[in-house]
Amino acid sequence: MKKINVGKKILSANEQYALNNSKLLNEKKVLCLNMISSPGSGKTTILTRTINELKGKIKIGVIEGDIQTDLDAQRIRATEAPVVQINTEGACHLSAAQVASALENLPVDGLDLIFIENVGNLVCPSAFELGENGKIVVLSVAEGDDKPAKYPTIFAKSKVLLINKIDLPSAQMDFDIERVKTDARKLNKAIEIFPISAKTGQSMNDWYKWLLKAAENQLSQK
Amino acid sequence: MKKINVGKKILSANEQYALNNSKLLNEKKVLCLNMISSPGSGKTTILTRTINELKGKIKIGVIEGDIQTDLDAQRIRATEAPVVQINTEGACHLSAAQVASALENLPVDGLDLIFIENVGNLVCPSAFELGENGKIVVLSVAEGDDKPAKYPTIFAKSKVLLINKIDLPSAQMDFDIERVKTDARKLNKAIEIFPISAKTGQSMNDWYKWLLKAAENQLSQK
Repeated sequence: MKKINVGKKILSANEQYALNNSKLLNEKKVLCLNMISSPGSGKTTILTRTINELKGKIKIGVIEGDIQTDLDAQRIRATEAPVVQINTEGACHLSAAQVASALENLPVDGLDLIFIENVGNLVCPSAFELGENGKIVVLSVAEGDDKPAKYPTIFAKSKVLLINKIDLPSAQMDFDIERVKTDARKLNKAIEIFPISAKTGQSMNDWYKWLLKAAENQLSQK
Repeated sequence: MKKINVGKKILSANEQYALNNSKLLNEKKVLCLNMISSPGSGKTTILTRTINELKGKIKIGVIEGDIQTDLDAQRIRATEAPVVQINTEGACHLSAAQVASALENLPVDGLDLIFIENVGNLVCPSAFELGENGKIVVLSVAEGDDKPAKYPTIFAKSKVLLINKIDLPSAQMDFDIERVKTDARKLNKAIEIFPISAKTGQSMNDWYKWLLKAAENQLSQK
C-alpha cells in the first residue's frame, strides 16, 4: 500500500473550533483567559471582585461554564458585566464549540478581556484548548499544599497561579505556601504566582496590574 | 433487514470488570466503598483517622487513586493498613480494570472493608462503577454550600455525604450546612449526612457506627 504524507496535522474538531475562536479573539484584540480550578476555590468571587475593581479601566465579559444551574452567572450579572452561561449537562469540561457559541452571544467588539470560568475540575479542563490566550489556575489554601505535585498538568500549562483564601487562619490550614510555589515553579518556570484573598480584597493589586498589562499587550499586538 | 433481539444488555468493558470486582468482593464478604470528592476535601485524613480509630474492630484496606505521586499511599501506610497505589497518569477517574488489578495485590481474604480513594474530582468518577457496594461523597465547608446544586450526580448516587472541616470558623466560611442537607436530600432522600472534622476528630462517631453496621450487614448477607 502506498503511503501518502499530506504534510499537515489533522486537527480534531475541538482544535479546529479552538483555532477559530483564537482567530476571532485576535482580530477583535480581545484578551481571553481560561480560569480552571477545583469546585469551590473561589473563581466566581475572584471574577466579581476583579470586574468591580477594574470598572472604568477595562471592559470585561464572562463565559460561565457549569454542569448545572446559572448560580454563578447570576453573581456575575450583578456586576453588570456581560455574561453567557453554558450548562454542560454532566460534561466535566467546556469544549471549544461551546465557547464559539457563547462568543456569538457576547458583545465581543466592545470588550477588552473575556474570562472563561471553566467547570470546577482540576483535571479534565486542562486537556481542552478553547482558543484562549492563557490559562489561570486557582488553588485555595483550604485544598492543601500538595496539589501541584498531585495534579501537575494544569500548573505546568498556566500563565498565572492564584493562591486564594489567604485570609483563612494559616495555623488551621497546614498550608505551606513556599512548598506550593516551589512545586509549581518546578513544573513551570515562567508561572506568575499571586497569593490573594478575593473575599477581603487582600493582595489583589499585583493580579490587577498583571491583567491590565496582559490586556494592553494583546491590544498592541495588532 | 432482520432485527435480532439478543435479549441481553451488552456490558461495556468497564461494567464487566466492575461486575467481576463486585462478585469477588461479595464472595469474600468484604464491604467496598468508593470515596469521591474534589481535591483537598480531606479524603486521606478521613481515612487515616478512621483506620486508626477502628483498629481492633474491623480490618481495613485501601486502594489509593491519584494522577501522580504516592503521597496519599504513604500517609495510609503509616497507619499499617494494607494499601495499593494506582497512578492514573493523567486520567481523571479510576477504572474498574485498575481496581481489579489492585484487588489482586491486597490481602482481600483478611479484610472486612476496602476503601477506594478515587482521583480528586467531583465530576468524572461518579460515572464509572468500580464494583463497590456504595459511594461516599466528601464536601469540605471551604468549598461552598452550592455544590449539591451545581454538581448533582455524585450527591444523587452516594450512600453517605461527609461534610468535612467543620472545625473551620463558620463565620469565615459562608457555609450554610442546612442548605447543603436540603439540596442533597432533594437529590437523594436516603443519603446519610455526617458533618465531621477528620482533623480534630469532632463528631466522627456516627460515621464510625454507620461503617461498622454496613460492614456487619455485608458479612451477614452471605
